[in-house]
Amino acid sequence: MNAAILTIGTEILIGQVIDTNSAWMANELNQIGVSIQTIISISDSGDEIKSTVEQLLNKYDLVLVTGGLGPTSDDITTQILCEVFNSKLVFHELTLQHIESIFAKRNLPLTELNRNQALVPECCEVLFNSNGTAPGMWFTKNCSILVAMPGVPFEMKGIMEQYVIPKLAALRKDSVIVHKTIQTFGLPESFLAQKLEEWERDMPSSISIAYLPSPISIRVRLSSVGTNKVEIEKAIDQQVQKLLTIIPNYVFGFDDDSLASAVGVLLNKYGKSLSLAESCTGGTISQLITQISGSSAYYKGGVVAYSNEIKVNFLNVDNALIIEHGAVSQQVVEAMANGVRAKFKTDYSIATSGIAGPTGATPGKPVGLVWIAVSTPEGTISKSFAFSNDRERNILRSSVTALNMLRLELVILTK
Amino acid sequence: MNAAILTIGTEILIGQVIDTNSAWMANELNQIGVSIQTIISISDSGDEIKSTVEQLLNKYDLVLVTGGLGPTSDDITTQILCEVFNSKLVFHELTLQHIESIFAKRNLPLTELNRNQALVPECCEVLFNSNGTAPGMWFTKNCSILVAMPGVPFEMKGIMEQYVIPKLAALRKDSVIVHKTIQTFGLPESFLAQKLEEWERDMPSSISIAYLPSPISIRVRLSSVGTNKVEIEKAIDQQVQKLLTIIPNYVFGFDDDSLASAVGVLLNKYGKSLSLAESCTGGTISQLITQISGSSAYYKGGVVAYSNEIKVNFLNVDNALIIEHGAVSQQVVEAMANGVRAKFKTDYSIATSGIAGPTGATPGKPVGLVWIAVSTPEGTISKSFAFSNDRERNILRSSVTALNMLRLELVILTK
Repeated sequence: MNAAILTIGTEILIGQVIDTNSAWMANELNQIGVSIQTIISISDSGDEIKSTVEQLLNKYDLVLVTGGLGPTSDDITTQILCEVFNSKLVFHELTLQHIESIFAKRNLPLTELNRNQALVPECCEVLFNSNGTAPGMWFTKNCSILVAMPGVPFEMKGIMEQYVIPKLAALRKDSVIVHKTIQTFGLPESFLAQKLEEWERDMPSSISIAYLPSPISIRVRLSSVGTNKVEIEKAIDQQVQKLLTIIPNYVFGFDDDSLASAVGVLLNKYGKSLSLAESCTGGTISQLITQISGSSAYYKGGVVAYSNEIKVNFLNVDNALIIEHGAVSQQVVEAMANGVRAKFKTDYSIATSGIAGPTGATPGKPVGLVWIAVSTPEGTISKSFAFSNDRERNILRSSVTALNMLRLELVILTK
Repeated sequence: MNAAILTIGTEILIGQVIDTNSAWMANELNQIGVSIQTIISISDSGDEIKSTVEQLLNKYDLVLVTGGLGPTSDDITTQILCEVFNSKLVFHELTLQHIESIFAKRNLPLTELNRNQALVPECCEVLFNSNGTAPGMWFTKNCSILVAMPGVPFEMKGIMEQYVIPKLAALRKDSVIVHKTIQTFGLPESFLAQKLEEWERDMPSSISIAYLPSPISIRVRLSSVGTNKVEIEKAIDQQVQKLLTIIPNYVFGFDDDSLASAVGVLLNKYGKSLSLAESCTGGTISQLITQISGSSAYYKGGVVAYSNEIKVNFLNVDNALIIEHGAVSQQVVEAMANGVRAKFKTDYSIATSGIAGPTGATPGKPVGLVWIAVSTPEGTISKSFAFSNDRERNILRSSVTALNMLRLELVILTK
């Protein structure tokens, strides 16, 4: 089944909103063998919506539309779809009751604008929105399906999970797409590609490969289409096993694994605990770790030691070290790691100290210089890095690099 | 000047990568009056790239293409563009030297794959990529311009800032688009729309309005197109001033302001300092604050007190309070805020304690229950919130709500 995603709203075209919905939808649909051929964003102009919807309905089996269903005056998707499908607007009783109950529960008066969100084209099947007021709508025309949903991410996700995915999965049982993604860290893309050249050359032609670089990992994705899911998965798994023998230390996980989740799995496995002392990363390592549900089992907590005073008073860093070597130094970052590990009584700890930029550089210490230390029961290791000139990128790269340093220490435990 | 953005790569269509490039490009182009009419993602199939590029060149004055310029076998954009523009591939000497110097500097051997990144169609103008190996390319055909750039965000941004934006700005000096975004927090979209109904009705027809809800703010955006930039800005500013009298307390900033930057401005203005004691938000408030360059002027640091032990030992929370009321309680969150403020010797502090989910609920304390406290020189205020069932959303909503509580305390100082 070939599909298109259409996102409506000027906010995306002027760059005010990043389209995260499409990626999520594409990923979900892929799992059930729906192949997204294109993702298009257009403005909320009536003519543009109408002509694009009609074109897409002619070309694809399935068109998923998000946005333009809100209560405000710039939201016109429902009206336009009503025209496209030659229908008329009617109140959907269940949705109206639902909207009324939401407002009653919050003890708020019901506005006319919200009541009108229960207006839907008569010809569509209404998909109940349990997370908000505007319902989803399912249309069929000739052999094509169009589904319209609100653009608010968690409302769209609710409708997709509850109705759209199950309905589509029931419709199609022929071909299946299998993807397997190998998560790597530590090798630049071209080196990875060169190390994998032979492996890539020997790959069966039924399996395609893609390299997906990002600041937090380089992913290698294998994809294959067919009818026998078990067989495809087996063929892909053979290739994955082969790859693992070529670059064992650079692979930290698969599919949606992150360095934070990989570290979490290892800490859990060996019953070890972790604490953090963050300076230049300012809480980002902690944020990445606590995004993982269940992280409280191994993560006790951390100190964001943004000022030197906090480094000295709370992490027992000797002030003489700061005076002699500066806060961004091997001596201080190791003292921070050892300090937090002792005070928080954990098995492992990570510390960071660096110059995230754009200001803060001193002679010999440019923007992007970052020291990272990992304190373990066996001792303390530390390394310096020269990252870029971009603050956001420096903070993120420092954070994932620190997690990878810890991961490499934990992996040794298995041996 | 009407433009389209075309993003090439299967990774976007299967949802593995979120397209952040397009939003950034759209925003930058908008500033110089280039109006993005559509954003399209397609796969890295040769036929699809060729036909889409040709269609877009026919329809728009400017087509910006990203992706498919990497060193690996799935990167075919350069080849296809060479066909579209009837050219042949030649080595670009300066780019080749640049690639060689990058590898020499890192003390790495130069691969054939990387050397080939210096191959460009003879007819294009090469845009030097100082952040990476694949250069940008500028083509003209009839009256249309096509610019191809690598998909790696900071490489694309470098080429855009250094070449594309200045060249485009020099080309066009006729019409100008002005946007002004008002950042609000604390009122749901439909209530905001209702409060602003009259204001919206009286708006001159030359100014259009859009409501952009997100978990971190609801933005109200005013847009207007014309030839006299100063006049348009004046007309929009009048509407902004009017709006500020209607919902003064809900507006925390404009355009790219965030709650974290708004809080930073206020703390700086009054020379006040801040510390944090985060439990359920796990470092996210700290991460938001330290994203702001210069935050070290007012942010001393914080404690991520993920375990109760840390709350007791480092924040001086009385263990009896935790036993009697539980860690997620008004008593404990206030003690955390007071504890960190005293220990870190800051003027203000924020503390959070809640159940982010999906596990951790207890009788009477469901997932999504969050206590937030703000400790000030005048006393401690605290509030409980019932957020959603989604871990990531709960953490983010708690973090921005906490920042807004602090903001409202700081705003009072001006009065």
